[in-house]
Amino acid sequence: MNNFVFQNATKIIFGKATENQVGAETAKYSKKVLLHYGGGSIKKSGLYDRVIKSLRDAGVEYIELSGVQPNPRLSLVREGIELCRKNNIEFILAVGGGSVIDSAKAISIGIHYDGDVWDFYAGKAKVEKAIPVGVVLTIPAAGSESSGSSVITNEDGWYKRGVTSVLMRPKFAILNPELTFTLPPYQTACGTADIMAHIMERYFTNVKNVDLTDRLCEATLKTMIKNVPIALKEPENYDARAEIMWAGTIAHNDLLDTGRIGDWASHDIEHEISGIYDIAHGAGLAIVFPAWMKYVYKHDIDRFAQFAVRVWNVDMDFASPERTALEGIERLKGFFRQIGLPVSLRDANIGDDRLEEMADKRTDFGKETIGNFVELNREDVLNILKLAR
Amino acid sequence: MNNFVFQNATKIIFGKATENQVGAETAKYSKKVLLHYGGGSIKKSGLYDRVIKSLRDAGVEYIELSGVQPNPRLSLVREGIELCRKNNIEFILAVGGGSVIDSAKAISIGIHYDGDVWDFYAGKAKVEKAIPVGVVLTIPAAGSESSGSSVITNEDGWYKRGVTSVLMRPKFAILNPELTFTLPPYQTACGTADIMAHIMERYFTNVKNVDLTDRLCEATLKTMIKNVPIALKEPENYDARAEIMWAGTIAHNDLLDTGRIGDWASHDIEHEISGIYDIAHGAGLAIVFPAWMKYVYKHDIDRFAQFAVRVWNVDMDFASPERTALEGIERLKGFFRQIGLPVSLRDANIGDDRLEEMADKRTDFGKETIGNFVELNREDVLNILKLAR
Repeated sequence: MNNFVFQNATKIIFGKATENQVGAETAKYSKKVLLHYGGGSIKKSGLYDRVIKSLRDAGVEYIELSGVQPNPRLSLVREGIELCRKNNIEFILAVGGGSVIDSAKAISIGIHYDGDVWDFYAGKAKVEKAIPVGVVLTIPAAGSESSGSSVITNEDGWYKRGVTSVLMRPKFAILNPELTFTLPPYQTACGTADIMAHIMERYFTNVKNVDLTDRLCEATLKTMIKNVPIALKEPENYDARAEIMWAGTIAHNDLLDTGRIGDWASHDIEHEISGIYDIAHGAGLAIVFPAWMKYVYKHDIDRFAQFAVRVWNVDMDFASPERTALEGIERLKGFFRQIGLPVSLRDANIGDDRLEEMADKRTDFGKETIGNFVELNREDVLNILKLAR
Repeated sequence: MNNFVFQNATKIIFGKATENQVGAETAKYSKKVLLHYGGGSIKKSGLYDRVIKSLRDAGVEYIELSGVQPNPRLSLVREGIELCRKNNIEFILAVGGGSVIDSAKAISIGIHYDGDVWDFYAGKAKVEKAIPVGVVLTIPAAGSESSGSSVITNEDGWYKRGVTSVLMRPKFAILNPELTFTLPPYQTACGTADIMAHIMERYFTNVKNVDLTDRLCEATLKTMIKNVPIALKEPENYDARAEIMWAGTIAHNDLLDTGRIGDWASHDIEHEISGIYDIAHGAGLAIVFPAWMKYVYKHDIDRFAQFAVRVWNVDMDFASPERTALEGIERLKGFFRQIGLPVSLRDANIGDDRLEEMADKRTDFGKETIGNFVELNREDVLNILKLAR
């Protein structure tokens, strides 16, 4: 186990009707906030009205900025920064899924920064100040509600890049599983792939003797594997939705990588796909992860066999751990397919004419490598994309 | 799953040589602190010198209060409160195990309280202010390093009582597994029983649909079951010690009871035993827990069968879940015995002449009940103590 520092102070307020507490929680930080959200879905569902009422009841004024899209855009972030500066706003309330939260975080670090906010995402500046962000979560997927990460897409070149800082962890996150009853099956499935990917990125590590976090990862994956099919069959099953929602937070609040080093190559590769084709991040992960696994599993067959046995209940083939390992990858792929996700580029109607371009962009034309479990160069990335065809 | 609020902001600094960061962490809060510890063991090991050096290097002055005993005493807490008041101290650094930390927390809530600090433990006052506490942990057991709990023994009547408040969570906890290399086998085993008991108190719940936390509990228990025998055979095995230490924190940082209600009757009963006989808390738990299980398992045979199958790898007997459940209890008892713990009062040289007295004290002569999984009255407590003979 490696040395580590772990601290996650985000206050999780979980359960039925908890969105009605948002005004009181927000008022602890500021009486004038930016209310940031996506499109009309929170208005249709009535959530918008309940949030507004709670804010008003607590005496909190708000200015609105809506229009966040999946794969949130830099242009809207810049607009949000200007809006906050003009109105002296020092708190952002994000109501939505990971895109809205990531956009809010980007605004939060841009407000008191003199340069262009993209500097943080381009690796040219380090986050030193962020105004506080609060969250009402509507989609369990990105884990952004208690993470310190934000991923933004720059329309100028369609670069999708991330930045991480503990300063960006939300102060509170309100998680009401009832708000996810209306999520369409495909979005539920995409969120599932994202959550499971967050765990698997951490699971596949070269750090030895990480029993507890291995077991915690497996526990969270098994919870997803049991409850997602239930939620797809019974969209208003509170308990299944609750397990998924809490698992989504646990998957990405940094507990599961204490003492270990995650991989993250699959996320990096996926960002190129959804950056160009604008498919859901979760769908992209369902395509990339099995391909990545098939490309790298020989690096540590024991670990892949453990994954197969403990997570997927594959019978250990003691004569051929490799067969066990491969069966685990097939089970993952089968599960993604079962819940309605694409598991190949073809499934997502993506041709193979831009694979070289993606490999180039991801590795800065071969100058950079990605991944920790196995370090991947441009050719490796291209090979994985080919395996994903 | 029940609604819940979860927030644990304790900063965990984990790994080799991390005690050398204690000065820098402490200086963030105060330049003059109370250094609180037990006896000579931290001096013998050299830890005391390293802590002092780190404090001095960071320009932190300190006043010392040593002498904390296992089952920490109210009289020393009162002494600590006076000492802090006299010297205007607003930060306490606890160097030791759960007893030292619990004692430090008691001092921290007493300083700015006008009445007697025991009021909090007697349920006569609510914690409204606490000065910050930092921790260098030497014994993985109580989980006090990131919990909001403190248990103190009042020598006047030998009452052992606890109090819980989020205000009492330590600001930081430094966890270096190397510091536990010198723990004698018996103390390692007692800590193990305490850690496992913290998980099992949460595991046995009447709240349904708690898949994720069930799985996380099982993950942490399995980690202990694997690593404790290794640490007993190889006291300087860093990885085994590290797994135990991190599991000890996870067991009691409140993550494992999100959305559920724990039982805690076994802890309550044990407090009577160690309050009177001054045996190690963990040893008392190893005696009480299997007896409690045998007394209550029929209340939810499915849950006990799940415990047996998932935690102890017992083959499910589909024709007799009860047999499976009972086998799980036997495995737990066998494990405690294997690691050198008493599993009956007789094993601990405790006679049966004061069982009635303990049942009386715990239930205020039959006026109160304990436990949530199964509510226990005076007769139940007495019956469990008899089963533990």
